[in-house]
Amino acid sequence: MTDTAPRPTLEAVAARAGVSRATVSRVVNGGDGVRDVLVERVRKAVEELGYVPNQAARSLVTRRHDAVAVVVAEPETRVFADPFFALQLRGISKELTAHDNQLVLLLTEGRDDHARVGRYLAGGHVDGALVFSLHLDDPLPELVQRAGVPTVFGGRPGWSGDGRNVVYVDSDNRGGARDAVRHLAGLGRTRIAHITGALDQTSAVDRLDGYRDVVADADPRLIAEADFTPAGGERAMRRLLDRCPDVDAVFAANDLTAAGALRVLREAGRRVPDDVAVVGFDDMLPVAEQTDPPLTTVRQDIEEMGRLMARLLLRDLDRGTSHEDAAGAPAGVVLPTTLVRRASA
Amino acid sequence: MTDTAPRPTLEAVAARAGVSRATVSRVVNGGDGVRDVLVERVRKAVEELGYVPNQAARSLVTRRHDAVAVVVAEPETRVFADPFFALQLRGISKELTAHDNQLVLLLTEGRDDHARVGRYLAGGHVDGALVFSLHLDDPLPELVQRAGVPTVFGGRPGWSGDGRNVVYVDSDNRGGARDAVRHLAGLGRTRIAHITGALDQTSAVDRLDGYRDVVADADPRLIAEADFTPAGGERAMRRLLDRCPDVDAVFAANDLTAAGALRVLREAGRRVPDDVAVVGFDDMLPVAEQTDPPLTTVRQDIEEMGRLMARLLLRDLDRGTSHEDAAGAPAGVVLPTTLVRRASA
Repeated sequence: MTDTAPRPTLEAVAARAGVSRATVSRVVNGGDGVRDVLVERVRKAVEELGYVPNQAARSLVTRRHDAVAVVVAEPETRVFADPFFALQLRGISKELTAHDNQLVLLLTEGRDDHARVGRYLAGGHVDGALVFSLHLDDPLPELVQRAGVPTVFGGRPGWSGDGRNVVYVDSDNRGGARDAVRHLAGLGRTRIAHITGALDQTSAVDRLDGYRDVVADADPRLIAEADFTPAGGERAMRRLLDRCPDVDAVFAANDLTAAGALRVLREAGRRVPDDVAVVGFDDMLPVAEQTDPPLTTVRQDIEEMGRLMARLLLRDLDRGTSHEDAAGAPAGVVLPTTLVRRASA
Repeated sequence: MTDTAPRPTLEAVAARAGVSRATVSRVVNGGDGVRDVLVERVRKAVEELGYVPNQAARSLVTRRHDAVAVVVAEPETRVFADPFFALQLRGISKELTAHDNQLVLLLTEGRDDHARVGRYLAGGHVDGALVFSLHLDDPLPELVQRAGVPTVFGGRPGWSGDGRNVVYVDSDNRGGARDAVRHLAGLGRTRIAHITGALDQTSAVDRLDGYRDVVADADPRLIAEADFTPAGGERAMRRLLDRCPDVDAVFAANDLTAAGALRVLREAGRRVPDDVAVVGFDDMLPVAEQTDPPLTTVRQDIEEMGRLMARLLLRDLDRGTSHEDAAGAPAGVVLPTTLVRRASA
């Protein structure tokens, strides 16, 4: 609808919903005394026609709760153990609070609980949802979509082209990875390994793709799969030293993984960066500054990603629109990354 | 109501609510097509009379969302920085998930946001609330009470005798503190200092009282106020060394504070425990094991406290009762503590 199009009237809404003008008016003014089924029909007609009463009335029609759900698709133990999530939540919390919206964090023990999260989202308790750390075979996006709440995703979703309109905020994972590996190559390193993140997440896939962009014909033994955790980084580094003792550089998919790799290299008597140069991803503080030696890494602004997710969602809620994109493809905001040089590479 | 008392009938509910049997029945069967004001009157009558239809119908009457709010009365930055909260949330999450209830964590930037939390609680989005880390002048308990949701508190609330029926779960803070200070006295220490927690919290007040129980005529200069944070512990330890250079023992109100104190003692060249013995509180792992030297401390089972809070709330929700106590005084479950000896004292 452009600004010059005629605005739909109360009458048009009543006709569409098959109810009286009085009923529409009552719904617009709060819905008291109107049966839920009629309220729903009126709301649907209002939405379909793009009917906009005055702002206060609209907020009643749309039943704003001034509450936004945040769903991290990880077990709560991980949410509290990995500072990445705390940072993203910090950005989200600041932005929601600035707009007097309540942050409703839905915690789970794991994927088995995602159906329950979907039920809560569908229950009319929040105006919208921010969902991040998705894994490829997770039913959550489907459940979120069925719940019918406006949603912004953190990280590029793993699907595409199936008609779902999604909005996401991401970092330039592939470009950042390329910068990291080019930096290592620029130091003259020729046996550059990559410790991946969890490859059921697009951020890990994109970083691996960035590595391959630079090391076009990578020895497959130089790629060790891990899962974004320090323990995963340790295990992957041990495998790498085992099968490629001549490794002279490592690009780790995040700083926690790099920290694990550094511990194993030290135990193995390899000097960093002299024998093996190491680059991480995130620039997670204080982690990246406190490793031994301090970590060269690819900086992404995690807190800003959280803020931006919240801002995009609130903008859409204020407009009362849902995300639309001409092509029906995911609409992403991709933030740039920068290489931060410290001592490890 | 005992098991042998006659069960209230549908008719009695209808009479009490001033509505027809049919209306009560419709509310009991989901409330569709009944005006909100009547639903409320029926629900009130159901509650007052203790009317219990079959289980499925009851859950409709009581409009269970299978969702429980958790409110930590601290800024979200603190919630994510202090592992105490992660542990308590872990216990809560496990227990709620075991009963297929959704954990709804309401995060804030600080006390200014508590009114909004109160509004969310009053909005009918959760069945009950678990509230912890209360501070004495916090409006939250009042807001929670006004919201009318069943609540269990973590930690003894700071009020008493004003007729509010509250249920809480706490540790034996005073007894644990006595054990800590007696242990230090038993080592022959005569200048035993105390670094307090945030004294607007009952846990800190109770631990200070426990210290005073043992050191009856404590030199007031030996008591340094802090706030349960490592930075607060560092500042307090510096003040103590300044004004009482002869201090030979410190009981810190929690492990994080003790860790801060240990750093300052090391900087000041004091050997622990030879020159100054140090005892903490919590037995927070890995903190207590990773200090230098490892920390003697008072163990409380933080995760179990969380579990127990959730269990007590779910029990009440299942019974459909609210907390009642003959005297109207807070009804507390107080868990025992144990002294764990490591190297620091």
